This record gives sequence, C-alpha cells and structure tokens, in this order.
Amino acid sequence: MTQITASARYDVCAVGNAIVDVLSPCDDAFLKAQSLTPGSMQLVDAGQSAALYDAMEAGVEASGGSAGNTVAGVGSFGGRAAYIGKVAEDVLGQVFTHDIRASGVHFDTPVLADGAATGFGTGRCLINVTPDGQRTMCTFLGAANQLSVEDIDTALIGDSAIVYLEGYLFDPAPARAAFEAAAAAAHAAGRKVAITLSDTFVVARWRAELLDFITASADIVLANEGELAALFETEDFDAAAAQLAAVVELAAVTRGEHGSVIINGDERVAVPAYPVDKVVDTTGAGDQYAAGFLLGVARGLPLEAAGRLGSLAASEVIAHWGPRPMVKLADLAAQNGLSV
Amino acid sequence: MTQITASARYDVCAVGNAIVDVLSPCDDAFLKAQSLTPGSMQLVDAGQSAALYDAMEAGVEASGGSAGNTVAGVGSFGGRAAYIGKVAEDVLGQVFTHDIRASGVHFDTPVLADGAATGFGTGRCLINVTPDGQRTMCTFLGAANQLSVEDIDTALIGDSAIVYLEGYLFDPAPARAAFEAAAAAAHAAGRKVAITLSDTFVVARWRAELLDFITASADIVLANEGELAALFETEDFDAAAAQLAAVVELAAVTRGEHGSVIINGDERVAVPAYPVDKVVDTTGAGDQYAAGFLLGVARGLPLEAAGRLGSLAASEVIAHWGPRPMVKLADLAAQNGLSV
Repeated sequence: MTQITASARYDVCAVGNAIVDVLSPCDDAFLKAQSLTPGSMQLVDAGQSAALYDAMEAGVEASGGSAGNTVAGVGSFGGRAAYIGKVAEDVLGQVFTHDIRASGVHFDTPVLADGAATGFGTGRCLINVTPDGQRTMCTFLGAANQLSVEDIDTALIGDSAIVYLEGYLFDPAPARAAFEAAAAAAHAAGRKVAITLSDTFVVARWRAELLDFITASADIVLANEGELAALFETEDFDAAAAQLAAVVELAAVTRGEHGSVIINGDERVAVPAYPVDKVVDTTGAGDQYAAGFLLGVARGLPLEAAGRLGSLAASEVIAHWGPRPMVKLADLAAQNGLSV
Repeated sequence: MTQITASARYDVCAVGNAIVDVLSPCDDAFLKAQSLTPGSMQLVDAGQSAALYDAMEAGVEASGGSAGNTVAGVGSFGGRAAYIGKVAEDVLGQVFTHDIRASGVHFDTPVLADGAATGFGTGRCLINVTPDGQRTMCTFLGAANQLSVEDIDTALIGDSAIVYLEGYLFDPAPARAAFEAAAAAAHAAGRKVAITLSDTFVVARWRAELLDFITASADIVLANEGELAALFETEDFDAAAAQLAAVVELAAVTRGEHGSVIINGDERVAVPAYPVDKVVDTTGAGDQYAAGFLLGVARGLPLEAAGRLGSLAASEVIAHWGPRPMVKLADLAAQNGLSV
C-alpha cells in the first residue's frame, strides 16, 4: 500500500444514501411472513415501506446509512470526516443532520428543498432484528435517491485522504453518476478511492459493473466474506482473496465473530474480533469496522493496527441497538490501548 | 387492598403526555454547562429545546412519555392496555402511534389536526444520559400540552380496571382538567385510580395540590423514594411511608438498586431488584416498574408477585437505550418463572 502522503484536511469523506433507521425486534416467522430474506437489504417503495412498518414491532429510530455510519464512527474516533448525502427538509432530515454533525462530521450537502411537496421525504430503512442480532433491511430511499452529480463537492473530496463510496449507490441511477464523479474528483486530486460492496444482493445485481469500477477506479475495498464470494462467484476464500488482490491495492474482508482479513498484495493480515458479551443488533457492524480501518489507513497506521480499530468499533456497535457508536470511540480506543 | 372484582375490558388505561424521546450520552460537565440539574425533568419551550438539541451528542429516538411507557410495558407483558394522550399529525406522531399500538395498546385519541399550522408538533423530551445511566430530561410538550377534557374517553376509562395518571400532567393546565375528569370517570365506574408522582421537582411545584388529589381521589400511588421524601418533606422513609399509608390504599415506592417497598396499610413488602450486568440508561425504569406492578394488581396477584413483575421489567429497560421494553416482557417473565 502506498502511504498517503499529501496532507489533507479530512481523513475520510464519504458519499452515501442519507437515511434514518427504524429498528425493531422480530422473529424468524415474521421475516418469512413478510417474504424477507434474512440478512439482506432490499429497496422498497413508499407504499411497501408503510405496509411493513405497520406490521413491525415497536422499536427505536437512529440515524443510519452505511457510509454515514462510517464517517460518524471516524468522527467518534476523533478523525476528521466529511459526508455527502441527501436528506429532505423534515424532522428525519433534521435528526440525520444533527447526529452526523454532532459526531464531528462536516456535512453541508444542500437539503432537498421541496421534499414535502414532491413526496420525497428523508429516506428510511426499516430494520427487523432477530434474537441472534441479525438484521434484515428494507430501504425507502426517498430524498437520498435524489443525490446527483451537482451535490458532489469536488473541493471537499480533493481535500480528503480517502473518499469512501457505498456499493448501495449502484442501485439509484442518479447516485451512480454522483459516485463516478466523486471517484474521479478524488483521483484528480491524488487521493484514494475506497468502496464497500455493501450487500450480497447488491453485488449479485451489479457484479460486472462493480468489478469494472473496482478494477478501474478503486484503491481500497471493504467487504464481508459473503459479498466477496458473490463478487467472484466462489466460496473459496483464498481464491477470491487472490482475485481481489489482483485488481485492488488494499482490501479488508470481515468474517463476523472470526474477525477480519486484510489483503495487501500477497500479504494476508488476520485480525481477531473483540469479544462481546451479548450481540444485540449487528446493524452497522461492517460500517464501524470500515470507520476504524479507513481512519487507520488514512493516518498511515500499520494494517493490523487499522484492523484492530475496526474490530473495536464493530464490537461496540453490535452490543446495542442502532448503527452508530453510543460512546466516544476515541475513549474506547484509549481504554483498549489503541492509538489513532 | 380491595380486590378488583368487576370484569373490565382493559387492565390499565393510562392518561399522559404523549412524547417522543431523544436520548444522547453526555458527561457531568455538559449538564453543568447547560445548567441542568442531574436526574431532573424540566419543561422547556420550542426555542430552548432547539438550542439544547443543537448542543447534544448524536443519539437515538424512541417513543416515550411516562404513562405511555407504562402501558407499552403492560402490553408487552400480554396485558390489555389503553392510552389517552395527544400527538400532532407529523412523523414523530406517527412513530408514537405506531409504537404504542405495536405494543398491543389501544390508542385512538384524536390527533391534533392542525399541528403543523399551529406550531404544536408532537412533543419531545431531550434526555441526556451520563455514564452511570442517570437521565436528565428537558421536555417540550408540543401537542401533548393540548390534551383536554374532550379527549377523555369516559367509556374507555370505565372499562379499565385501573386508570393511571402521570404527575407530570399537573404542569400543563388543560391536562390537569383532563386528569381530574379521568379520575372522576374511573370512580364513577367503580374502578381504581393510580397516580405516579413522576418527578421530585413536580412534587415540589405541586405538593399541596398533589396531596389533596391523592387524599381525595387516588387509590394507588407509584413513587420513588426521592419523590416520597419531597411529598412529605422528610428523609425518614418509614415516617413518609406511614403518612402515605394514611391517605392511600396501596403504594409502591422504588429504591433503585435496592428494589422497592410496597405499602398496604400497616403492611410493608420489600421486593428486591433484579441484577443487571451494566446499567446503560435508566430512562423508563420507574415506568416499567409501574407496568409490572399495576398489571399484577389489576390481575389480583399477591403484592410481592406484582412487585417482582415490576422489578423484572425495570431491569430489562435499564440495560439498553430507550424507555420501553425491547423484548416481549411476557417471554421474559416466563423465562424467570413469573406468571402474569
């Protein structure tokens, strides 16, 4: 991995679907009755979202969105982070904006001004969580779907060591163009482009396009082992890792309770997971791993140290409801003898 | 305690301030900087609410309101519960309505129709939680403040074994009238009237009025030891308990980690707290104790059994963020060998 040398104002700037999560407990029978594939994310329209919400248990709301969760984690570690994403001018948009700024993240993407009038409220993700902590997500993108090339602040991206993109952005067409523009702006400024594969089904839908994008434009890939298997259509982890190493400079693949493996050319660095008393809700686990890992890389830490920051952040978030840290990750890192 | 004999459609019908909570971590220095008294609840106006929210850390949102939390707990135990309270026609109102109904609670108080136009959005409570789990609350009542006598469904109350009233309702004048009307409707139907003292500062503000109300109209009082001390202006628990026993048929006083004491004439029943690995957020502890206790009383359980249901529900809610159960309390009771 080439060291990131040129000084940058931000460690990580993320581009993503700006969404508020609604998290409720459920059982397996509920997922079956609602025809939901356990562990998946699917897009739903406003009507489907309303119908599913009606059927869900009482729950909690929390700002979400994969890349938004990640930069909130970077901010919580004390890193310098920025975010680009679209909310509407409504209560959920205010909540999203408050939370990401309160995490120390720079966020000033123009709000979708006539959100209420157009019916594009702030996006929301309905998350049903089974007793084992696994989450199944149905996302109504709403205003997030209106993110466009005009929202890409190229100066902001040029001043960030790493720009981080969600695979989820491959789904909405206008966002895909924003995604490409962000990557181009980063490379034009000599910065690194990181992408998360986001979801097995996203990979299945956009496999060829994702692979093309990674090969042409990505420097760093984040994935879990299911997404890696889907990308290369093989359950052979070592074979898939080798294929990924051939097309990207650096990658980190999470393996749940088995920790993660960092892939750097021929090098493989295995990083253990931090123990958790009880897994409550795995929402945000991968996002928080990405927060620690990307911040570590942006700061030039050894790869294992970057991975450990990721593991630590993931262990915090899966022990409670919601996808973002509820403690200062900077304090948690210090308590665990890790430096940022 | 006279047994509740006449059959009723609902075990508990609560009247309260319908509010959505915003919960964020904070430290003691933050409370000091914001001039907030640790552990208190104070009313704030829209401007104060917005200014405090701006200063708060990122957090989570969850349906709240003391009596709303209690009936959600009753519903989670499998009890039959109803709720009367006022929300506006906005996203937070939808969240409140969804959550309380999803907990199995009957709720059909007319929504404040022109909420957006009048500026009375759904009420919200900003809750700052210190690392020891203690919560400090600032409530903007919003639409909840518009609850009036016309909202009191006397048929619903007449068909409920216990009507449960928040001491918090003593603060807004129209709600106070609703409060009195609800108590009158319950007694007219031969039902029991329960009240929680809610907060030490509420007791201090309305001490004489609360004492008059309890003496004239309440059959059951819920309180914590601080509120009991404030009501009788003495730190002598036994003396205060005796004074309470002289004016009310039945009472339960919670004592944090020391459990609770049930007061029934000359009888005192000490009920232990259930152990909790880590206290995360005490918001809703008293409300969930009330849920178990009132349901037990409505069902004619022995007082100690009713208290144990309360202790169990409180132990669940303080182990996570938010004021309502995130598991089915009916299942939790069964796992702990308690019958409802």
